[in-house]
Amino acid sequence: MFRKRHPPAGSQPGTMIISDEASKPAIRVMDYMADHLNEYEVDDVAQLRACLEKDSISWVDVQGLGDEQVLKDIGETFSMHPLALADVVNIPQRPKVEPYDGQLFAVTRMALYREGQIVSEQVSLMIGRNYLLTFQELHGDVFDPVRARIRQGGPVFRSAGPGYLAYAILDAVIDGYYPVLEVFGERLDALEDELLEHPVPAVLQRIHRIKRELLAIRKAIWPQREAISALVHDTGPLISDEVRVHLRDCYDHCIQIIDVIETYRELAGSLMDMYLSSVGNRQNEVMKVLTIMATIFIPLTFLAGIYGMNFEYMPELHLRWAYPGLLLVMIAVAAGMLAHFRLKGWLGNREREPQESEQG
Amino acid sequence: MFRKRHPPAGSQPGTMIISDEASKPAIRVMDYMADHLNEYEVDDVAQLRACLEKDSISWVDVQGLGDEQVLKDIGETFSMHPLALADVVNIPQRPKVEPYDGQLFAVTRMALYREGQIVSEQVSLMIGRNYLLTFQELHGDVFDPVRARIRQGGPVFRSAGPGYLAYAILDAVIDGYYPVLEVFGERLDALEDELLEHPVPAVLQRIHRIKRELLAIRKAIWPQREAISALVHDTGPLISDEVRVHLRDCYDHCIQIIDVIETYRELAGSLMDMYLSSVGNRQNEVMKVLTIMATIFIPLTFLAGIYGMNFEYMPELHLRWAYPGLLLVMIAVAAGMLAHFRLKGWLGNREREPQESEQG
Amino acid sequence: MFRKRHPPAGSQPGTMIISDEASKPAIRVMDYMADHLNEYEVDDVAQLRACLEKDSISWVDVQGLGDEQVLKDIGETFSMHPLALADVVNIPQRPKVEPYDGQLFAVTRMALYREGQIVSEQVSLMIGRNYLLTFQELHGDVFDPVRARIRQGGPVFRSAGPGYLAYAILDAVIDGYYPVLEVFGERLDALEDELLEHPVPAVLQRIHRIKRELLAIRKAIWPQREAISALVHDTGPLISDEVRVHLRDCYDHCIQIIDVIETYRELAGSLMDMYLSSVGNRQNEVMKVLTIMATIFIPLTFLAGIYGMNFEYMPELHLRWAYPGLLLVMIAVAAGMLAHFRLKGWLGNREREPQESEQG
Amino acid sequence: MFRKRHPPAGSQPGTMIISDEASKPAIRVMDYMADHLNEYEVDDVAQLRACLEKDSISWVDVQGLGDEQVLKDIGETFSMHPLALADVVNIPQRPKVEPYDGQLFAVTRMALYREGQIVSEQVSLMIGRNYLLTFQELHGDVFDPVRARIRQGGPVFRSAGPGYLAYAILDAVIDGYYPVLEVFGERLDALEDELLEHPVPAVLQRIHRIKRELLAIRKAIWPQREAISALVHDTGPLISDEVRVHLRDCYDHCIQIIDVIETYRELAGSLMDMYLSSVGNRQNEVMKVLTIMATIFIPLTFLAGIYGMNFEYMPELHLRWAYPGLLLVMIAVAAGMLAHFRLKGWLGNREREPQESEQG
Amino acid sequence: MFRKRHPPAGSQPGTMIISDEASKPAIRVMDYMADHLNEYEVDDVAQLRACLEKDSISWVDVQGLGDEQVLKDIGETFSMHPLALADVVNIPQRPKVEPYDGQLFAVTRMALYREGQIVSEQVSLMIGRNYLLTFQELHGDVFDPVRARIRQGGPVFRSAGPGYLAYAILDAVIDGYYPVLEVFGERLDALEDELLEHPVPAVLQRIHRIKRELLAIRKAIWPQREAISALVHDTGPLISDEVRVHLRDCYDHCIQIIDVIETYRELAGSLMDMYLSSVGNRQNEVMKVLTIMATIFIPLTFLAGIYGMNFEYMPELHLRWAYPGLLLVMIAVAAGMLAHFRLKGWLGNREREPQESEQG
Repeated sequence: MFRKRHPPAGSQPGTMIISDEASKPAIRVMDYMADHLNEYEVDDVAQLRACLEKDSISWVDVQGLGDEQVLKDIGETFSMHPLALADVVNIPQRPKVEPYDGQLFAVTRMALYREGQIVSEQVSLMIGRNYLLTFQELHGDVFDPVRARIRQGGPVFRSAGPGYLAYAILDAVIDGYYPVLEVFGERLDALEDELLEHPVPAVLQRIHRIKRELLAIRKAIWPQREAISALVHDTGPLISDEVRVHLRDCYDHCIQIIDVIETYRELAGSLMDMYLSSVGNRQNEVMKVLTIMATIFIPLTFLAGIYGMNFEYMPELHLRWAYPGLLLVMIAVAAGMLAHFRLKGWLGNREREPQESEQG
Repeated sequence: MFRKRHPPAGSQPGTMIISDEASKPAIRVMDYMADHLNEYEVDDVAQLRACLEKDSISWVDVQGLGDEQVLKDIGETFSMHPLALADVVNIPQRPKVEPYDGQLFAVTRMALYREGQIVSEQVSLMIGRNYLLTFQELHGDVFDPVRARIRQGGPVFRSAGPGYLAYAILDAVIDGYYPVLEVFGERLDALEDELLEHPVPAVLQRIHRIKRELLAIRKAIWPQREAISALVHDTGPLISDEVRVHLRDCYDHCIQIIDVIETYRELAGSLMDMYLSSVGNRQNEVMKVLTIMATIFIPLTFLAGIYGMNFEYMPELHLRWAYPGLLLVMIAVAAGMLAHFRLKGWLGNREREPQESEQG
Repeated sequence: MFRKRHPPAGSQPGTMIISDEASKPAIRVMDYMADHLNEYEVDDVAQLRACLEKDSISWVDVQGLGDEQVLKDIGETFSMHPLALADVVNIPQRPKVEPYDGQLFAVTRMALYREGQIVSEQVSLMIGRNYLLTFQELHGDVFDPVRARIRQGGPVFRSAGPGYLAYAILDAVIDGYYPVLEVFGERLDALEDELLEHPVPAVLQRIHRIKRELLAIRKAIWPQREAISALVHDTGPLISDEVRVHLRDCYDHCIQIIDVIETYRELAGSLMDMYLSSVGNRQNEVMKVLTIMATIFIPLTFLAGIYGMNFEYMPELHLRWAYPGLLLVMIAVAAGMLAHFRLKGWLGNREREPQESEQG
Repeated sequence: MFRKRHPPAGSQPGTMIISDEASKPAIRVMDYMADHLNEYEVDDVAQLRACLEKDSISWVDVQGLGDEQVLKDIGETFSMHPLALADVVNIPQRPKVEPYDGQLFAVTRMALYREGQIVSEQVSLMIGRNYLLTFQELHGDVFDPVRARIRQGGPVFRSAGPGYLAYAILDAVIDGYYPVLEVFGERLDALEDELLEHPVPAVLQRIHRIKRELLAIRKAIWPQREAISALVHDTGPLISDEVRVHLRDCYDHCIQIIDVIETYRELAGSLMDMYLSSVGNRQNEVMKVLTIMATIFIPLTFLAGIYGMNFEYMPELHLRWAYPGLLLVMIAVAAGMLAHFRLKGWLGNREREPQESEQG
Repeated sequence: MFRKRHPPAGSQPGTMIISDEASKPAIRVMDYMADHLNEYEVDDVAQLRACLEKDSISWVDVQGLGDEQVLKDIGETFSMHPLALADVVNIPQRPKVEPYDGQLFAVTRMALYREGQIVSEQVSLMIGRNYLLTFQELHGDVFDPVRARIRQGGPVFRSAGPGYLAYAILDAVIDGYYPVLEVFGERLDALEDELLEHPVPAVLQRIHRIKRELLAIRKAIWPQREAISALVHDTGPLISDEVRVHLRDCYDHCIQIIDVIETYRELAGSLMDMYLSSVGNRQNEVMKVLTIMATIFIPLTFLAGIYGMNFEYMPELHLRWAYPGLLLVMIAVAAGMLAHFRLKGWLGNREREPQESEQG
């Protein structure tokens, strides 16, 4: 369910709520130009001032949001608006893009499938003239391929400005949804198979769980579509035309992911319907067993009851062939009933026929 | 259900309907500038005229709407349009923002979770050049943190004009929905657990109650989104650029709340489906017990009935081992039936298997 | 169901279909200015020509649409377009606003709750430079408060032009929906209570009836929202700025009514779900009674059947304590079954517990 | 289901597929001006060239689409675009309006209720400077009232140009939906009554059939709304302002028809729900009969079984009053059970009560 | 389920993922002008450079995407953006149109019904000044009619530029959906018939399969509508006015296909409802058999049990006519029950009546 770190209503705007479980921030800088690259860790926020004055591009990556003072210092160094800083910390925010004076602020949300669980993490980006700030909730991320591309240093990347770097990170975030979709696809397939074989109540709980998770994923991805669209249509100097073309590609992926999620939601709904009807079918099966047994034996038991009566004058009782005769009548009644049920298709044979012919 | 204090159709526009239960208005003024603060209670509306002439900002807070004359006097003092004044009193109004000559009128709706109940209260705001009027239905509110911020007197707040004050109040109203969402989240979680353990009919009533309350909350929050959006895009002088940036933040919260409510509505719908299927499952369980009992004992009773018949010529009756033999046959029949049902998974063992393998 | 008086396809546009049941038109004029008021009934349409030439404002109210010639004469006198005149008569029209040369034509629909029935009536308005024509299906209306306000003669009303008068009538029409909503609210509340106490099939029919009526009300109110919005945004001279402010208020009420209707529709849908599940629950209850009775007595009857057999060699039959012993065994079996069912919660006790704890 | 005469994928655009069943085209011309009217049949398409050169207005009505050469000749004579000509023949097309050089091309769809069937037919219109071409699938149509109006020759009609004539035909097409709606209304009413009286499975099939037909009608009418709206907003010279006013009226009818269809669809959905719940109710009724019978007789049969046992030492068997005493006990047990069921409302009496009180 | 060839998150944009199963590219060129046509196969990509320099139009058709180097060479020759090239290879892409410098890039998706399966294949188009590149996943396609039209060489086609050729291919793709729709229509019809005759569980699986396939088709066709609309409204020089008219026709077909798919989806949903109700109906039928048998025989068995008791003093036992009298009573009871059930319509006769009267 929805849990948000939010200050009490009426607080100063920009109030940060630091979680007790949040880890201390670790700051890593990649400082690069067409022809040089400098990577270092930063302990004292004051060191970051240098990034502003250089011509080179600095990617300042902050992992862990557990120290209010450090975050405030970073915010001050890069002139971040207090509301933007609060959005970085007070998690979860809705993915969005907001223009500030000379800066673009973006909130995005990664989704990962880890140990049978869908986990998600907020990544905030602040794009400036010659720097990109990224803030992540946890240590460790999925941006190593991006770092590798900077290190390999294609000329395109190194000279393309912080807008391109922001695109590369957003693209990694969005493309990270594809493996999650594949997991969902497999689980829906597995559920469908299981539904046909053993439609037990546990299947319903799993459909419900998938629906819940799809709702969560959908809530994360829908606003990203709007956010990336806002970036594509941003007319400021931070996003160049070439980056715009790349963002358009990223936007396409985003829409494709949304399409697939909506399709999965419909499939999950259809599986729910199938489950409900399987409940009805199983009940039918149980009812049929009861009805067949009862319908065959109740009349026979009645016949036996008749000749168990103690009337003095019951001529049949004294006939020699009455007993075996009655047994024959009983067998005939039971056989007639069975034939009737077989004709009605209650004995399972006619039900399977169309199924087979379908596969033929 | 919907209850509205509305004048009879065809009345003079601006007719106020004063509820008998409404408490008398209490008027408190906070009059502040960058360097001074003056708080006082007002008994005579005529005193309020002073607010209009000063350069300082006056927050005139009216709690309780139980006196038509006082409200009319306030309206006249601040040149409120009669329709705006009627909207303050004839509760509930749909949240909205309306421009009047030199004024902005806003209606908003607080939601609180108090003693197991979701309660809501209308707050109306009239933003003028150097004043803000607020009207509340009841004495007592959630704006004490805002008052505290004025008293502490950050320079930003004190010099920011009535638009910023209006934002601060709206922000407190919107952020007040987060705790309500948390309550709903917990209740949905609790319902889901209960649904798995005891899916009794009372659960359905509680799902229905949650759906009703979610509908009410949704009806309150949706129009606030439009209203805040209208404020963000208002081009008048009452909303400064800085306030606009803050309102954008408030708008984001509003959208996030709407997202969560829509998700909760879908989850409530899915819980309803689960409940309905659990009704079917319980019925299956009941049916199975009946069917197993009947299927085992009806043939046995029939056999007993056979040998309870009084035919003269029933050779088996006189055999020494007939009775224990028949008992053995009966035991064999019963055991065969049980084995058959166990194979069909009706005795509960096969049903639990997939559930366990799911957790493994 | 939908019934419309419409000319056969292909007829001359503007063809009027006069219903046989329609009553003869009665024409009443209120002719007023800031300082005078003149009320009179009109027998001969030719008298109406005077209205066009005066400076004063004339409200020409036509009740009853049963005379084609009279309506045509009125149309000619006030230069009404034949299509507008046909819209007045060929009922029902969709509520709408249409501009004609120097005129504004509006169709609206009143809803009333009268004798346990929702009834509705079309009111057509033609706003001209110095007159307002209104056409009503039936004699008698809800506009007496409006007439009273003209007679009392507030300066605002009397000098505000026919646009303001049209607003006053529209406002009376829209506000007339509030009592209807209250009736629906009470009926839904009553249905919900009854659903919990006696979920009989008749409840379903009543839910269906409410859904049908809500659909009808919705079909009437939705287009009025568009129509009033068109009036608010009309840039012609017939609607002054002051009237526009009042129409905005009327528009708000319209949206609020739509909100409530949509909420009621969702509640009605949720009641339908509750009813369906109550059908399942009642069936469960019936099934449990059957299953408990059958499960307890079938084995006992079998035991009795055993000792009703007539085998010669059944040693138990001759034991002195066999009969009371068997009775004790039977009591033990029945008691064991009952204990088992109580443990399973089938005897009703465990079902009620959570319900009670919920209220605690 | 959807059947379309379409050329194989990849064919030349404008390829016509002539159906084998299509009848030969019959061409009728009505050539009129304010003061003259000339009606004639055309055998040779070459004769039509005259229409282009006259000042009078020519309505060229082609009924039957079974001759490719004739259609091509007509197309060439009036300079029709090959794609427009293909749209005339390759039926069904989606209703639409398309501007071509100096021409407006419209596709519309008539709906008729004929012999218990909803049938529909495509009518294509090509509006030119001084001519109107209409193409119909079948001989015979519903435009005779339009022809009569031309013959009667009101000055409005005769001097209004081909745009007005096109409007008259579109209006006849749209107004032709009203009788179809009435048929649906009656069938839904009849279904609702039958559902309350005999909710047999055949009702479900009829609900499904109505839903299918409503879907078909809806697919036909929705695009006509867009098409007529496109005509209303067309700024070309072919549609005069006066015709625009008339088309607005036609547009209103179209919207009203759509409103009614949507309402009917919701009603059909609600009937489906009622049917499903009636299935559950009937099952409840069956179950109750079974449960009451079983619950009363199973314990009694058990008692009878007890005293049918053959134990030697059963003292009750020898008591004089044991037999009548047991019979009394049995009657008491049965009466107690019946009283219990009556109290539970299972014997039908309490179910009817609320229904009666509702009508009271 | 959704499967996509996508590079790992964070890769270089434009990374191509070549499938192991993809076949080697085969390149065929059709080089044509008004008066000449030249068809040849290309082995070495360098040969394609000639296409750029000629005045004639070159259609370069690449079938098979199994060689990264060849594709990169083609991309370089025609100055394709790396992102466009990646979209060609990383299948599936969402259908779309994207403008690049002097080029238009389009992704579309064919659907075919082949051997009882709906298969789909991505076709990518790159429109340049004097060339059209097409990329297909597999060897073999449905564009032979287009090739034939080029060879026959109508003047329209040969002189119309690559935009017209692109239209011809898109049109073939879109029109290829019609046969698929027909297949769906037949399957829905067949399902409906089967549902009425044998509503077995296998039908439900087939409804689910159709729903899944309709979802897949819908996901393919919806974005094509947007893409073609983007082409129609493209203002660049590559799409001439005449091509625009043709694309409008193609757009109409696309919308018609979407309409039909949406209708089919609603029908599939309605079939699901019918199936669910048929499950309930079959259960009713089973229940009725059980109830009728039990209700008739249980009381009779009880009566037999009474006279099977061994009381010493049961005067009836010694009456001469008691036994036949009891048999008569039993027959009367059974007949009474049967009459009662026939009256209630449980014996099938009354159920069929309304069905017959409907057809009369």
